[in-house]
Amino acid sequence: MARVALLVQPHLDEVERRIAQQTAAFDPAIEGYVTYAVGGRGKRLRPLLALLAGGATGQINSGHLDLAVIVELIHIATLVHDDILDEAERRRGQPTVNARWGNSLSVLLGDCLFAHALNLSTNFENADISRAIARAAREICSGEMIQTQRRFDLKLEVDDYLRIVEKKTGSLFSTAAELGARISEADPRVIETFRKFGMRIGKAYQIYDDCLDIAGTESATGKTLGTDLRKGKFTLPVLIFLRSASEFERERYCSLILEGKCEQMTELLRNSATNGALNESIAAGSDLIREAQTGLDTIAQNPYGDALFALGGALREMFGHLRV
Amino acid sequence: MARVALLVQPHLDEVERRIAQQTAAFDPAIEGYVTYAVGGRGKRLRPLLALLAGGATGQINSGHLDLAVIVELIHIATLVHDDILDEAERRRGQPTVNARWGNSLSVLLGDCLFAHALNLSTNFENADISRAIARAAREICSGEMIQTQRRFDLKLEVDDYLRIVEKKTGSLFSTAAELGARISEADPRVIETFRKFGMRIGKAYQIYDDCLDIAGTESATGKTLGTDLRKGKFTLPVLIFLRSASEFERERYCSLILEGKCEQMTELLRNSATNGALNESIAAGSDLIREAQTGLDTIAQNPYGDALFALGGALREMFGHLRV
Repeated sequence: MARVALLVQPHLDEVERRIAQQTAAFDPAIEGYVTYAVGGRGKRLRPLLALLAGGATGQINSGHLDLAVIVELIHIATLVHDDILDEAERRRGQPTVNARWGNSLSVLLGDCLFAHALNLSTNFENADISRAIARAAREICSGEMIQTQRRFDLKLEVDDYLRIVEKKTGSLFSTAAELGARISEADPRVIETFRKFGMRIGKAYQIYDDCLDIAGTESATGKTLGTDLRKGKFTLPVLIFLRSASEFERERYCSLILEGKCEQMTELLRNSATNGALNESIAAGSDLIREAQTGLDTIAQNPYGDALFALGGALREMFGHLRV
Repeated sequence: MARVALLVQPHLDEVERRIAQQTAAFDPAIEGYVTYAVGGRGKRLRPLLALLAGGATGQINSGHLDLAVIVELIHIATLVHDDILDEAERRRGQPTVNARWGNSLSVLLGDCLFAHALNLSTNFENADISRAIARAAREICSGEMIQTQRRFDLKLEVDDYLRIVEKKTGSLFSTAAELGARISEADPRVIETFRKFGMRIGKAYQIYDDCLDIAGTESATGKTLGTDLRKGKFTLPVLIFLRSASEFERERYCSLILEGKCEQMTELLRNSATNGALNESIAAGSDLIREAQTGLDTIAQNPYGDALFALGGALREMFGHLRV
């Protein structure tokens, strides 16, 4: 991923500086919390997408940098609230906001970041851009809400999962890529190509993240893992595993989940004799990446477009490390 | 209050219909929760302000109705999150969202409503209006956050309290009134008059609400009371009470609060022998209302402007019922 980012590293550094500067927009009484939440260097995937889509369709300008800052702030706001829901203790190698200052402050800090990001988005001259960002923010919240509402719902199917993922992750990835092209004043057809690319990469990334929650290690990822099953979030590997089980086995697995014996389930999912579901999920993610890459065929080639293609490759490589 | 609203009742009914219709904008899976949160008929004070300011400066149009819907949705979103923080059980005579479906769902439902409101606000042709709404949303969150951060802070002073109130309540009231005038394309000086009116009425209303938490009854208000002290929120009557106490008494009262013996403190605040602080708070609220009313002197008289003046009177009457 670092290799892909190299092309826009100076821009990413500038985005990082601007993100850090946002804390100054807050009351001194809360600046410290904002600094804590926006620090800790995440992967900045959404800014990367915005910048590369901008470069692939024109010159990267100040609007692209603003967009990159805004999508990352929205993402961080959702992480702060996610960690409350998941009762997660660690994120990006440090204690989560809720672990450090409790849930009340985390609810409000997420709100502050969210409101600030949407506030920044209204500075675009072109109101369509603010509208698209506000729409994405709404989609993320809807996706998260449907996911929460269907926790421990044994009737959840793969299609439901994919619809949730489209909203909660795909929407911001797709908006980052779409608006990157829109800010460059690209052709509507090209803008649509980037929107689709972002959506597919976003969905693939969420599938990766969900597989990581089962197959990863906390030391390598720097965050609390295994929370999905414990919280009743049935992700792709789990859904495929349950779908391919016999009725008898399915009942047993469901009991394990409902009784909170999640470690046994995780063991089963990781076990090489029964890991078909994990590998099938990885394959589904890879398919999405391939579709995303193929979609780029129609746009004019340049180094930024090539880097977007390579971003798909880097994500596929990350999937490769998960294969058991 | 009902008397003041009479003049714009058909418009308020239309706002109510539009608020109810917003649920259709959400995924069917979450529509039910949205319906629950937006129902339960609150006082709709912010819509009332928006409509009256609109009528006082021109003809009430569709833009004013949109504004009224948006400010109320933002307000409802903040209530949903507030009730999590306060662990409140009842609101508007029915169980709170958190009491019914838990904190996780409430965090996300608040987010959904908030994002949806900001999404609606981007539909205004005039981007300045969306900007002002996004700014108000940010101010509310900052105010709530500073308040939470300073819970149980015995160094909190009356001025700190007023600054918090300005942000968390004043900002949305002032934005409702300001934008009501702006949508009517009023003169900048007139817009500023309405902004100030909204700010003062908003602050007065918050002081009223904070006094109510001490002096009101749950059966009359339909909501959980006494949460402020329990949660370490030092409101105006408490701050005045502590300020006017001798050092010895002050120490005793602080111990009561820190040890969670809040009912004893509430008794002291309500007791006629020691209720100077409550009455002083009521007087401060009345002063703000008078200032707000005086500020209206410079605008051209019409029935809507008169109704705004009367809104101040109605609020002063509500204060009167609290006097012990």
